[in-house]
Amino acid sequence: MYPKNTWYVAATPDEIAAKPLGRQICGQKLVIYRPRPGELAALEDFCPHRGAPLSLGEVCDGALVCGYHGLAMGCDGKTVSMPGQRVGAFPTIRRYPAVERHGFIWVWPGEAALADPALIPHLEWAESPDWAYGGGLYHIHCDYRLMIDNLMDLTHETYVHSTSIGQKEIDEAPVSTRIEGQEVICRRYMDGVMAPPFWRANLRAHGLPDDQPVDRWQVCRFSPPSHVMIEVGVALAGHGGYEADPKYKVSSVVVDFITPETDRTMWYFWGMARNFRAQDTQLTAQIREGQGKVFAEDTAILEQQQKSVEAWPGRKLLMLNIDAGGVQARRMIDKMIAAENAAAPAPATAAPGSAAPHTQSPTAAAVASAA
Amino acid sequence: MYPKNTWYVAATPDEIAAKPLGRQICGQKLVIYRPRPGELAALEDFCPHRGAPLSLGEVCDGALVCGYHGLAMGCDGKTVSMPGQRVGAFPTIRRYPAVERHGFIWVWPGEAALADPALIPHLEWAESPDWAYGGGLYHIHCDYRLMIDNLMDLTHETYVHSTSIGQKEIDEAPVSTRIEGQEVICRRYMDGVMAPPFWRANLRAHGLPDDQPVDRWQVCRFSPPSHVMIEVGVALAGHGGYEADPKYKVSSVVVDFITPETDRTMWYFWGMARNFRAQDTQLTAQIREGQGKVFAEDTAILEQQQKSVEAWPGRKLLMLNIDAGGVQARRMIDKMIAAENAAAPAPATAAPGSAAPHTQSPTAAAVASAA
Amino acid sequence: MYPKNTWYVAATPDEIAAKPLGRQICGQKLVIYRPRPGELAALEDFCPHRGAPLSLGEVCDGALVCGYHGLAMGCDGKTVSMPGQRVGAFPTIRRYPAVERHGFIWVWPGEAALADPALIPHLEWAESPDWAYGGGLYHIHCDYRLMIDNLMDLTHETYVHSTSIGQKEIDEAPVSTRIEGQEVICRRYMDGVMAPPFWRANLRAHGLPDDQPVDRWQVCRFSPPSHVMIEVGVALAGHGGYEADPKYKVSSVVVDFITPETDRTMWYFWGMARNFRAQDTQLTAQIREGQGKVFAEDTAILEQQQKSVEAWPGRKLLMLNIDAGGVQARRMIDKMIAAENAAAPAPATAAPGSAAPHTQSPTAAAVASAA
Repeated sequence: MYPKNTWYVAATPDEIAAKPLGRQICGQKLVIYRPRPGELAALEDFCPHRGAPLSLGEVCDGALVCGYHGLAMGCDGKTVSMPGQRVGAFPTIRRYPAVERHGFIWVWPGEAALADPALIPHLEWAESPDWAYGGGLYHIHCDYRLMIDNLMDLTHETYVHSTSIGQKEIDEAPVSTRIEGQEVICRRYMDGVMAPPFWRANLRAHGLPDDQPVDRWQVCRFSPPSHVMIEVGVALAGHGGYEADPKYKVSSVVVDFITPETDRTMWYFWGMARNFRAQDTQLTAQIREGQGKVFAEDTAILEQQQKSVEAWPGRKLLMLNIDAGGVQARRMIDKMIAAENAAAPAPATAAPGSAAPHTQSPTAAAVASAA
Repeated sequence: MYPKNTWYVAATPDEIAAKPLGRQICGQKLVIYRPRPGELAALEDFCPHRGAPLSLGEVCDGALVCGYHGLAMGCDGKTVSMPGQRVGAFPTIRRYPAVERHGFIWVWPGEAALADPALIPHLEWAESPDWAYGGGLYHIHCDYRLMIDNLMDLTHETYVHSTSIGQKEIDEAPVSTRIEGQEVICRRYMDGVMAPPFWRANLRAHGLPDDQPVDRWQVCRFSPPSHVMIEVGVALAGHGGYEADPKYKVSSVVVDFITPETDRTMWYFWGMARNFRAQDTQLTAQIREGQGKVFAEDTAILEQQQKSVEAWPGRKLLMLNIDAGGVQARRMIDKMIAAENAAAPAPATAAPGSAAPHTQSPTAAAVASAA
Repeated sequence: MYPKNTWYVAATPDEIAAKPLGRQICGQKLVIYRPRPGELAALEDFCPHRGAPLSLGEVCDGALVCGYHGLAMGCDGKTVSMPGQRVGAFPTIRRYPAVERHGFIWVWPGEAALADPALIPHLEWAESPDWAYGGGLYHIHCDYRLMIDNLMDLTHETYVHSTSIGQKEIDEAPVSTRIEGQEVICRRYMDGVMAPPFWRANLRAHGLPDDQPVDRWQVCRFSPPSHVMIEVGVALAGHGGYEADPKYKVSSVVVDFITPETDRTMWYFWGMARNFRAQDTQLTAQIREGQGKVFAEDTAILEQQQKSVEAWPGRKLLMLNIDAGGVQARRMIDKMIAAENAAAPAPATAAPGSAAPHTQSPTAAAVASAA
């Protein structure tokens, strides 16, 4: 239940620096590696000789040499050579379009002919020297859409992250959910509130007082298939809030790339980009550590939620106003999948790891509810 | 394969003292908690908002507040409130009858209308100040009926517990099995034997000599669905045995509440009640520790037996005279289940965790056998 | 997918020295034990009383006494006695032919009437005082045939064992594969090469120079169902290689007994026999330790290969000239299985552990390939 004709973040460059990486994306097992410094390739992780994972091998002279019997695979999926063999008739393995951009490795798990690198989103914070970025990767046992729901309804911060970024006013402030072009955007503004611990620390780091009321904002932007960028920040109250002059505010972008591994597991590339003290690598490390702890709280609850929705298959879930972001995001996803299915006349054979008979996607029941 | 219209021990009070408890009983996932001090509630462990387990939440002002987005659930299964929402149309979740009595939390997993607290067995040892009780809880990977078999045929003590309570004379003394009212009772008397280590220690603790012959008895009482109370003791030989004056004997009641979790896993609430030196809490702790070790020996063999009967599906087991207690207990259980099925016209939908395709209940073949 | 009417190595004597051993062979759970010193028996690991594994019991006066309720089982599968019971009508459990020979316990998992001990292969190295043997046992999560493939194509040494026995010349030297009687034999000769680390150490241990060219050989002998004996060695170049006088060479036999546990797991009895310095037990231990490390490298890649061929069911594997040994061995195995199936009119009921729905045996596609 995921689109395939799209770019997913599959890895970060450090993961392929020393050796090839075996990783499953959208039910497909891939090996991602650097044929030569600065180059990138992604193939089926399957040696056509005897089926060993190519990710156990090593790169040698631009070829990925199988660690079992030495078949040398080219980055086009064709065998280059093998000791003592003529390899011309060897079957070709599947090549996946892969692009390194914005500090991530992007892979297109669907039809290669459709893979246009221009479809990779532009990320200003990843390219501008005015911004710093720190992040990490979590492997989570849940349907990737549960994570989208999580990020598009930040009222959970009050409960899941009560000691860091949660505060009661998140619940009380209404959220506005809109579709703008290819994005679903949820906006929430909390004016004249006291900042929670995470933001008080950031105010101090920014040289601002942490004991005065602030205007706080959260702008969640979902773009298909599963990217969520969240503008978050606080400004000293009365200076314009989200629009305030930089000297009165501290803000950042929470970065979330969510990549399905199977129907019930996912890779979560999380991070934070900021445009203040961008050169302060110690601050970057410190924010990264704090964010890692906060996001581990989500991991715990999402894995329990996954087990729970699997245990009650068919049980309908509510769609409240606060859930509108997730609901709209899922509709976009469903449309992409439907369009892919319509375009593909015959179903492909089952991909490895995709057969998860218990997998249950939560369904939703409309319930009238308003503040 | 368990009755549902009955009271099971689901927890002990200490398990819900600090926070809600998530526990699966008879294939159903429950949250058990105290809405207020001294009160008790049990509900489906499923938040109607987005399906998170309610057991991850906290109690606040009598409501169970979901740890994900703050839905406040009442102990009747109806949502009390949720920040920014009108909750009147929210679906109700299932409430389970729950009663605290005799130092245990009892839950009725079946039809709530039938749950009469008067059906909870009376346990004198739990209420009288003349008695002391100590016990524990084991989670065991086996069909709960294997544990009933175990407790209704104590010849296993000779082999499984050879260093503590086992002795050859258990095998040699005939057992009498009778149905009396709603109980299956197995009685065994061993007169003029030397006490095994566990009882020698208890004789000494009681100020009695441990080097003289004793009359030993075991009276196992099964009552549906899965409670087994075993009167055990020794008296100095020639003073009347089971009927001897208290000054000549030491005795206690082995307490076993056996609660199915799924078809192949169970909760085992074990303990020992005694009416001598009842105020001696150190002795209670010491007995509890010893019993815990002995009963862990059962756990090990039962889990292996479960794997074995699953590996040989359909293989018939023997029903010897020593097995009569377990056989009769299973017949009572089967009758309860049949009566429930007859009363329930349409089968309920599968409960979570109950689908265990490999589960194999041992069948039994009649074999003529007698001492 | 394994023959059953054949002898498999099931255990080594040290494994049954102290107590009965529970072991699964060809999907069947067995208990292997010594009824009396020097005697041997193998039975179904299932007590006919209540199904507990007999391997949890103890041997007493020639009988295997069940550790649960004391049923005493004879080595013919008939109950000898049980406290307080007449056992004449107790069902018999299956007895498996078992023979101790050549330092191993051999078991025949198929039809007992066909089990002729004369069919156990003769192993000169196991009987002659001129030879020493050291080995071990690995439990590996893969189809046993992947291990046969591994041992019949030693080009993998170049890649998997690059730091010990691998060298580029293995790839470059052609292999000859022949069927001779009931054996598949792969021969490879590498003349005038420098020895790899493992052999340099052995040359030194043998008092020979390690810095001169050698003639190296590998002769792999597969015999059904799954035994692979590999003659390996090096001789100082120009002295006749494989045929050289013993004073110029150092050689040994790699011993591999491969026993299916289930369709996707196996027991690997590995070792090395040598006919130089046979009395040097320290050398035996040293070689054993080194071999254990080298063969653990195979374990790692085979378990990954198994996962991979399961993830791509139906994906054809190549059959190159280097794979001919494994291909021919599989053909012999397939013929044995076909003959068994033809001889057995009705299929037996499923044996425990044999039902592995995901199990995938790699299929093979013919590809023209030659050096």
